[in-house]
Amino acid sequence: MRTVIVGGDAAGMSAAGRVKRTLPDMEVVVLEQTRDVSYSACGMPYNIANPARDIDDLVVRKAEVFREKQGINLLTGYGVEAVDPGTQTVSGVTHEGNAFSFSYDRLLIATGASPVMPDIPGTDLPGVMALKRLDDGRSIKAFISQNRVKRVVILGMGYIGLEMCEALRALDIDVEMIKPGPVFLPWMDRDLARVVREEVEAEGVRLYPGSEAKEIKVSGNQLSVVCGKGTHTADMVLVAMGIRPNSREAAAAGVALGPSDSIAVDKTLQTSIPNIFSAGDCADAYHVVTGEKTWIPLALRANRAGWAAADNICGGKTVLEGVAGTAVFKVFHLEVARTGLTGEEAKRYGFEPAAVTIETRSRAHSHPGASTIYAHLVGDKKSGKLLGAQLVGREGAAHRINAAAVALHARMSVQDFSGTDLSYAPPFGPTWDPLLTAANQLSKNMR
Amino acid sequence: MRTVIVGGDAAGMSAAGRVKRTLPDMEVVVLEQTRDVSYSACGMPYNIANPARDIDDLVVRKAEVFREKQGINLLTGYGVEAVDPGTQTVSGVTHEGNAFSFSYDRLLIATGASPVMPDIPGTDLPGVMALKRLDDGRSIKAFISQNRVKRVVILGMGYIGLEMCEALRALDIDVEMIKPGPVFLPWMDRDLARVVREEVEAEGVRLYPGSEAKEIKVSGNQLSVVCGKGTHTADMVLVAMGIRPNSREAAAAGVALGPSDSIAVDKTLQTSIPNIFSAGDCADAYHVVTGEKTWIPLALRANRAGWAAADNICGGKTVLEGVAGTAVFKVFHLEVARTGLTGEEAKRYGFEPAAVTIETRSRAHSHPGASTIYAHLVGDKKSGKLLGAQLVGREGAAHRINAAAVALHARMSVQDFSGTDLSYAPPFGPTWDPLLTAANQLSKNMR
Repeated sequence: MRTVIVGGDAAGMSAAGRVKRTLPDMEVVVLEQTRDVSYSACGMPYNIANPARDIDDLVVRKAEVFREKQGINLLTGYGVEAVDPGTQTVSGVTHEGNAFSFSYDRLLIATGASPVMPDIPGTDLPGVMALKRLDDGRSIKAFISQNRVKRVVILGMGYIGLEMCEALRALDIDVEMIKPGPVFLPWMDRDLARVVREEVEAEGVRLYPGSEAKEIKVSGNQLSVVCGKGTHTADMVLVAMGIRPNSREAAAAGVALGPSDSIAVDKTLQTSIPNIFSAGDCADAYHVVTGEKTWIPLALRANRAGWAAADNICGGKTVLEGVAGTAVFKVFHLEVARTGLTGEEAKRYGFEPAAVTIETRSRAHSHPGASTIYAHLVGDKKSGKLLGAQLVGREGAAHRINAAAVALHARMSVQDFSGTDLSYAPPFGPTWDPLLTAANQLSKNMR
Repeated sequence: MRTVIVGGDAAGMSAAGRVKRTLPDMEVVVLEQTRDVSYSACGMPYNIANPARDIDDLVVRKAEVFREKQGINLLTGYGVEAVDPGTQTVSGVTHEGNAFSFSYDRLLIATGASPVMPDIPGTDLPGVMALKRLDDGRSIKAFISQNRVKRVVILGMGYIGLEMCEALRALDIDVEMIKPGPVFLPWMDRDLARVVREEVEAEGVRLYPGSEAKEIKVSGNQLSVVCGKGTHTADMVLVAMGIRPNSREAAAAGVALGPSDSIAVDKTLQTSIPNIFSAGDCADAYHVVTGEKTWIPLALRANRAGWAAADNICGGKTVLEGVAGTAVFKVFHLEVARTGLTGEEAKRYGFEPAAVTIETRSRAHSHPGASTIYAHLVGDKKSGKLLGAQLVGREGAAHRINAAAVALHARMSVQDFSGTDLSYAPPFGPTWDPLLTAANQLSKNMR
C-alpha cells in the first residue's frame, strides 16, 4: 500500500510520520515543491527581527531525519500539477524540469496556502516580498541586510503584517501600513481595536486604513506605492494581505470545495472523492459554535488534522469536532487574543448577540506592575450560550483566552461560564478573572 | 427587614454591598470583630516584601465608604459570641467590652477562617506570628523592621508559607521551613513538586519536611524551635500550617457542619437553619468533579458566595454549582497551578485514575526566552473524564490552568479536551499547548 502526501509542511509531515509509526509497512511518499520541510513558519517574524539568528534555526526536523530515521520517501523540489482520481495518480514536474508521476492507494492533499497578491502593476518588482514559506523569510532577511533597508511599506494590517511591523521596528526600520478597508482589525471589538492601534502608533508605525494600493513603481532602488490618497516610498514593500488555500489542483480533479475555495473535508478529513484526504491550511473545518463549515488556517489545526488524517488513512476512525477559531498574536507589548464569533459573525449565523466590553487590571488590587486588560464577550440572547471572547493586554491575554475556547467547545452558557472556578493569585490577576467580570456583566445584559 | 452579616471580609462585604444595591430599604448590619474590612488578604506577602509600601494600601474600600456611600451599618470591633436561631438574635461584646445584641430577619455568617496553631509550648511568645488578618500583616511588618529580623523559621510549607518565604528572601532574611509531614507539597505530582522544591532551595531556603516542632523557646531576643531532629534558631517564627473555619458559634447554634468542620451550605448558601446563610472561608462547597462536599477556602469562592448569598437573601434564586479547586501561587520564578483532583484524591472518590506528566517548552521551537513547563493531567479510566490538572513553569502556568478548570466544570472527557482549539503563537507556547500534549498522551493511556 502506498500513501502519497502532497505538501511537506505542518499537516503533511505530521501525517507522514504518524502513518509510518502506525503502519511501518505502508510506503509513504511526500512530494514537496520547495526545499524546506517541517519548519516553524509562525516563527519567521521573530527570526527576521534578529539578524544574528540563522533562518534555518526555525527548522524543527531536517529532511534527512524523515528519510533516514523514519523511512519516509520525502522528495523535495517536486511540484504536483495534477491529480487523477480515476487512475489514482498524481503527476507533476520537478524543480529540475523532470516529469514525474506516482500512483497512490491513499492521497493526502496538504498543499497549504499562498499569500494573496494584489492585482496591480509592480508586484513582481525586486523588493516586493510576501512572507509564507521559509524561502520567503530567507529572501526578506537577505534583502533587508543587503540593501540596508530603512523604510518598509506593508500592504495589509492582519496578524502577519502586525507581527512583521514589530520585527521591522526592532531593526529600526521605518514602517507604514496600508490597507484598502477603512477599519483597523475589523473582526475586533472597536474598543479593543483602538487599544491595539494606539500601541502600534505609539511605536512609530503610521497606519493608513482606507488606502488602496493602485500601483507599485520603482525609481533607482526606491519603490513607491501609489494609492488613491497619496504615494508612499520605501526600500521594500511587504505584502501581507492574507492567504488563500492552494486548492487549484484538487478542484481540477473534481474535489469539492468549501468556504474561500478551501478543500471541503468531513470530520475524518476525507474529501468528496474516495481515498483522497486533505489537511492543513488548504482544507476547511467545522466551527464548533456555528456547526457550519469555516476556513481558519492556523498551525494547531494543521498539525492536528495531519495526525487525524493519518489515523484514518491507516484504517482508524479519528473524528475532529472542529475549531473554535482561537487565535493570538503579540504586537509590541500587547497580547491580542480571540476565540469564537464576533458580534457581527454571530448575527450572520442567526444568533441574537449581546456583547460586553470591560476594562480591568492584570494583577490584584495594589499589586505592583499591573497594567490594563480588556475583555470582550459575546453571548446569544436566545440560547444563553457563550459565542466568543476577545482579550487585549500587556500580560495574561494569550493564555486566558483558552478558558473561553474550552467553554465554546463545551457549548457552555454565559451564566455557567461566569460560575467557573478560575485561578487567582495577586501576581496573576484580580480575584475575579477579567473573563468572569465580563461574563457576570454579560449574563445580566442577557436576562 | 434587617440582614445581619457576621464578618466584614471578602464574603461579608460583597454580600452587604449587593443586598443594599438590590434592596435599598433593607437594613444591613455588618458586625466585624477587627478594625479592618475589605482588604486584599492574599496580597499581604507581597506587601510585606516591600518595606516602602504601607500595609493599608491593601485596603480595597474603606469602612467610611460602606457606611456613607452605601448606607451599610458597618460596626467594627464587634465580636459575635452567640447566635440564637429561636429568637433570631446575635449577641456578643465589643472591643471596648460592651455587650450588644441584634435581631435579624436574615443572617449571613461570614466569619472566615483562622490559622491553625500547633499545640506546643511557646506559640504565645513575642515573635511567633501567623498571617491571616490585616493586623497580622501589620504586626509582622512592624516586628521585622523593629527587630531587624535576619532569620525566620516558617512552620508549614503550603501556599502561604511559600509566598512568605519568597517575601522574606526579598528582604534578605534567612529562611528555614519545617513541617511534620515527610512529603513536600503532598498534593502535587512528585515530578512537579521536585521542580518547585529545587526552585525554593536554589533561592537559599532550607527545607525540613518530616520535622515536627515540639516547643518554641526564647533566650534573649533569640527564638528556638525544638524539633525531634534538632533545633532551629530564629528572630521570628511564622506559623503557616493551614487554616480552619471559624464555625464554633454557628455549631453552638445548631448549624450543621461539613468537611473540616466548615459550615454546611446548599447551593444557594443556606445553612441547615432557616434564614441563616453562610459564605466565605467558613463555609463548605460542592466539588464539581466529585459532586461531594469539600472545603477549599479561596478568595474567588468567598466573593462569589457573598454575592450569591445576597441574591438569595433578597429573595432571588442564585445557585452556585461548586468549585473545581483551582488554585495558583507564585514562588520565586515559578508559577504553580492546580485544578480538580489529584490521582490520590481520585482514588479516594472511587474513580479509576490514569495520569500523565509531560515536560515541554514555554515558547515555540527556537523562540528566544523559552523555559521548561511541566503539565500533569489526571483522567478517569472508567468514564474517560478529565479529573484534574497541574502546571509548573516560569511562565504561562497560572492562566493556562483555567482551560482545564473550565473543562472540569463542563465534565469534559480527556479526549474531547485534547481536541480543543487552544491558542498558539510563538512567544506564548508550542503549537500544541502543554495541556494538549498531556491530554493527547493521557488519552492514549486511557484506552
